[in-house]
Amino acid sequence: MALPMKVTFTAGVSGEWRILRSQTLTGAGLPAAPFLSVREGPSENVSGECAWSLCGFTSHLRYTDRREVEALVSRQEGLARPEAKHAALIPIRKTEAWWNLAQDERRTILEERSRHIAIGLEYLPEIARRLHHCRDVGEGFDFLTWFEYAPQHQAMFDALLQRLRSTEEWMYVDREIDLRLERAI
Amino acid sequence: MALPMKVTFTAGVSGEWRILRSQTLTGAGLPAAPFLSVREGPSENVSGECAWSLCGFTSHLRYTDRREVEALVSRQEGLARPEAKHAALIPIRKTEAWWNLAQDERRTILEERSRHIAIGLEYLPEIARRLHHCRDVGEGFDFLTWFEYAPQHQAMFDALLQRLRSTEEWMYVDREIDLRLERAI
Repeated sequence: MALPMKVTFTAGVSGEWRILRSQTLTGAGLPAAPFLSVREGPSENVSGECAWSLCGFTSHLRYTDRREVEALVSRQEGLARPEAKHAALIPIRKTEAWWNLAQDERRTILEERSRHIAIGLEYLPEIARRLHHCRDVGEGFDFLTWFEYAPQHQAMFDALLQRLRSTEEWMYVDREIDLRLERAI
Repeated sequence: MALPMKVTFTAGVSGEWRILRSQTLTGAGLPAAPFLSVREGPSENVSGECAWSLCGFTSHLRYTDRREVEALVSRQEGLARPEAKHAALIPIRKTEAWWNLAQDERRTILEERSRHIAIGLEYLPEIARRLHHCRDVGEGFDFLTWFEYAPQHQAMFDALLQRLRSTEEWMYVDREIDLRLERAI
């Protein structure tokens, strides 16, 4: 499907992913629920049956330069690989101070100093991911990042998160929830 | 109001701006209507009474570096100046080729080669403007740019548009409509 594509994540009593753990790292949490469904494409408003629903949009890359795009494209794999039975959904919000920075200042912190893109590259193709933007649509978060990986790459994924969370960029994160899931169907 | 802020432009039989002219420069047009209303903040879906309605979101700057931000802030004036009785709404869409470029490539075309930011600066404070993003929300356009100026700066505004439309950046524009308005109330 062409970009931008709307993706809706809905937590409730059913869904193709079982929620194994929901950890609130910073800021307000989300209600607990046993399952998560992920819907791609335009959607009607979700009914009152769910615990929570968040939507975001896949979009063009906002910081990545041409060299980095080529490296990503050559190494990354898509979602829905049969072996990728584990997933994570990590909604984050960044502070007003972050959004008030100029583009060059944000790029400098994100990549030149925090190595966000370079660190992510080290974990390809094992850790597949898709970024969804939601700052502009009032979701209470700025980004919903979705990760998929095989169960044997759990420790690798935890190491990736630990490295990103120790960066200067993460000092600008003021809400973060870490949901871990496994394929239920 | 804090960013991002939703803004809804609705054309129909009433509104605080009279539509003087609607010119389709590239791609599909929009239905004709005599008035335009501009609503800031969350809005219910617009009823069927209107000719068309487009919404977008003010957001953080995507290309501007710190030096340029300082220059803009020091020179720009806000909307709703009493003397700014003329306005323009210019919805544009860019091609997939544009959105498939990396961030550094888009910045190079937009500013280093097309001088988009520098040209806009030359027309401050006379030509006030506000950019609204709508690519991620499926509006048929990527940006809705709103301009306000005093009637005596009409020629200046036309010159600004002529310069921008002659740039390399504009080769990536595949839909553009130029609506001119005057304050009706």
